[in-house]
Amino acid sequence: MSTQSLDPRTGELFGPVIADTDRATFEALLDAATAAAPVWAATSRTHRATALRAIADRLDAAADTLVPLADQESGLGLPRLTGELARSTFQFRMFAELLADPAYLPTRLDAADDRPVPVGHPQLLRVLVPLGPVAVYGASNFPFAFSVAGGDTASALTAGCPVVVKAHPAHPQLSAAVAAVIAAALATAEAPPGVFALVNGMDAGTALVSDPRIRAASFTGSFGGGRALAALAAARPEPIPFYGELGSVNPVFVTPGAAERGDALAAEYVDSLTLGAGQFCTNPSLLVIPRGPLLGAIKAAAAGRQPGVFLHPGVASLFDERLNGMTAIPGATVEVAADFAGAGLRAPVAMVSLDVVAALDAIDAVQVECFGPAGLIVEYDDESQALELADRLDGCLVAVVHGSPSEPIAAALVERVTRIAGRVAWNAWPTGVAVTPAQHHGGPFPSTTNAQHTSVGGEAIYRFVRPVVFQSLPDSLLPPVARV
Amino acid sequence: MSTQSLDPRTGELFGPVIADTDRATFEALLDAATAAAPVWAATSRTHRATALRAIADRLDAAADTLVPLADQESGLGLPRLTGELARSTFQFRMFAELLADPAYLPTRLDAADDRPVPVGHPQLLRVLVPLGPVAVYGASNFPFAFSVAGGDTASALTAGCPVVVKAHPAHPQLSAAVAAVIAAALATAEAPPGVFALVNGMDAGTALVSDPRIRAASFTGSFGGGRALAALAAARPEPIPFYGELGSVNPVFVTPGAAERGDALAAEYVDSLTLGAGQFCTNPSLLVIPRGPLLGAIKAAAAGRQPGVFLHPGVASLFDERLNGMTAIPGATVEVAADFAGAGLRAPVAMVSLDVVAALDAIDAVQVECFGPAGLIVEYDDESQALELADRLDGCLVAVVHGSPSEPIAAALVERVTRIAGRVAWNAWPTGVAVTPAQHHGGPFPSTTNAQHTSVGGEAIYRFVRPVVFQSLPDSLLPPVARV
Repeated sequence: MSTQSLDPRTGELFGPVIADTDRATFEALLDAATAAAPVWAATSRTHRATALRAIADRLDAAADTLVPLADQESGLGLPRLTGELARSTFQFRMFAELLADPAYLPTRLDAADDRPVPVGHPQLLRVLVPLGPVAVYGASNFPFAFSVAGGDTASALTAGCPVVVKAHPAHPQLSAAVAAVIAAALATAEAPPGVFALVNGMDAGTALVSDPRIRAASFTGSFGGGRALAALAAARPEPIPFYGELGSVNPVFVTPGAAERGDALAAEYVDSLTLGAGQFCTNPSLLVIPRGPLLGAIKAAAAGRQPGVFLHPGVASLFDERLNGMTAIPGATVEVAADFAGAGLRAPVAMVSLDVVAALDAIDAVQVECFGPAGLIVEYDDESQALELADRLDGCLVAVVHGSPSEPIAAALVERVTRIAGRVAWNAWPTGVAVTPAQHHGGPFPSTTNAQHTSVGGEAIYRFVRPVVFQSLPDSLLPPVARV
Repeated sequence: MSTQSLDPRTGELFGPVIADTDRATFEALLDAATAAAPVWAATSRTHRATALRAIADRLDAAADTLVPLADQESGLGLPRLTGELARSTFQFRMFAELLADPAYLPTRLDAADDRPVPVGHPQLLRVLVPLGPVAVYGASNFPFAFSVAGGDTASALTAGCPVVVKAHPAHPQLSAAVAAVIAAALATAEAPPGVFALVNGMDAGTALVSDPRIRAASFTGSFGGGRALAALAAARPEPIPFYGELGSVNPVFVTPGAAERGDALAAEYVDSLTLGAGQFCTNPSLLVIPRGPLLGAIKAAAAGRQPGVFLHPGVASLFDERLNGMTAIPGATVEVAADFAGAGLRAPVAMVSLDVVAALDAIDAVQVECFGPAGLIVEYDDESQALELADRLDGCLVAVVHGSPSEPIAAALVERVTRIAGRVAWNAWPTGVAVTPAQHHGGPFPSTTNAQHTSVGGEAIYRFVRPVVFQSLPDSLLPPVARV
């Protein structure tokens, strides 16, 4: 098996045919990652930070090559991809900076206490040790920020784990190019050989999560793909942590007060819905608004929006299927019909409206993610209906409330969506996940397979470490990580 | 179905027949826990700490009733059980004390930054919210500290989660008595009704982990029982975190230097092996020593040790079966033969020796936990053999090295066992897990189902919370937990 690049603007294949990773190469890469694990785990924070900065610098320096290649393979456009690469390199530098803080990957000491038990106890020093080689499954919709040079790779390397990335077949050339930049940067930073590798092909992908040398796996992608890999991780003789970010229907609630913003709100919504041709796991695909003129304003704002293109044929065909499902919900009205005419993998804006009572009757169908620029707009007459809908929703990455603090419904909505969301945004739009130390990008199932961890931000490293307590161990025998 | 107490010293049933929890009661308890969840989550840290202290005070006050009852049901003896109750109430008080520290269950703020992205970002406030009702499966071997009033209950309540405990059938009367004390304490502390409940019976136990109202589960017990419950937790339409502490073979390595301690080391080993009739998940069931006079010293130390009794017939019969397996390992020599003669569920000391080459040849059989006072003693001739054995071992709760910092083998052994253990103890014995803020009781699989979390110590609460980030949310709309 092999992969070739596809230009989504034309639908044409181009560039070299990239062979799947063969078994012998796979074995050699995994052995090298295993050998690198204790060496990389023993590196100082300073050394690791230097390596992370070297990756960022080299990626930035290669922008003129990488960004056009990403554009040709993804159709996401140069401005967006330029920004996304900057976000990715910022992420590596943020982790490098955080490593200087002793509160990051902290060591904790309970000094010996010689009083009688249960009060007294020996000296206990708690350290966080890296899990070992990590498998990273890149996503198609962020060829930089959630792929080979994405947050999973950055956080696993920061935690002290070697990384083996499974390349997404939607951008095989970019994956190889980015991997080469990372490998070169790590080599100049004197990281051990084997600390980073890239594999290609479905077989290598499934072999990776089942391989005993892999100690954790992270994934960003579809519910189906994530669940399948999660099942493999759980079925191993020795199960490993599996962090799947499976996407989400991200509900946006608009209070009657906020609806008065009318045209401005409508334009913001359409901007968020169509950003990146709607191919965001944080897409505002479920909008809940009071019945009134807002729906008309949204339709007007959507008029004449140029469609983007889908990332690859798989996204296009699933969009078509899911959009048909959305319009088939009893009571659904097509407000903006999808227009697929044109060259390549056209991603047309589509909008469907539904009365809240009909939405409550079809609560499962309402929450099927239609990945792309398709909006389901639910209208309510009574505030209690909006609250009832909020109570019936499944876990999501982000939930949004547009309102005023003085409206009782705003507080009630915030309280309810806090139960189901990993992030609760106020008078904002769900797309755009800031990379900061405290960020949390991970909501209750089905939006992720582990709601206690994040795939974005400074806390992402804690997916790849485990605690070890050293009891009464002399300083000279402590591992390097505990001597910081 | 029903349960009745069994006196392990006589093998006789005694006391009332306790009926399994019926379906209607189960439903009512789960509904009450669900209703209590948001109320308990919204309590202040001070209120929660007061409730935890009330539980500790009432349990201490009831010691004269509870300890003899625990002894009659477990056969563990009054001194041990008096200490274990003190440990349990100390644990509740430690959590109460930790709640006063803002670094515990911390809230983290990334203040808004209006520079351009990716540096700039909105205000992000990260808080930890309780998961909701937690199922706790108590163990038989610690009727206080890992049962109804154990660390799981204490940490889940501290985290803000209601608790439903599945009573262990080996101590049904004690479970009911302890539950009544906890319920009374919570009532006086004005905790919401439903924040704590006890259920009885296998059916209720399996229903609990599959019930959609339960949001996390913790378990201390056998590998088989834990794996079965973990599978149920993973198979739910909406999987939940499952924290299973499944027990462990805890290797103790003795260097040639440490072996010179001879009789003293031998006596300490036998003490640790036979503590609580060997029924500890931290039992030193695998001892690795240099060939020489130490084995004889151990046999001498074991002579005349009075056997204890097993907790219940299930432990006794599994011990018999596993001990037969141990003696059947090719090359095994019975050093101390088990003497089962006497009344009740006698737990005799047993010791089997094995050459390290034979141990390496039977590495799986060597690691089968024989729960009780049975020791497998592996003798090595060359230090490299001890290191090779360490390299071949599976995950464990605790690993121990007895040695001197000046011996190269000591450092090499510490490095190796750090890869497989949750706790690494130096010149100590694995039994006895101190309750401290930084303690970690949780090792790699198969010793637990989640090596990143602990069931003992201050960090245990983090099993029962998840992060939520509030983006740009006005202070007045923040949930109580974020206003601390």
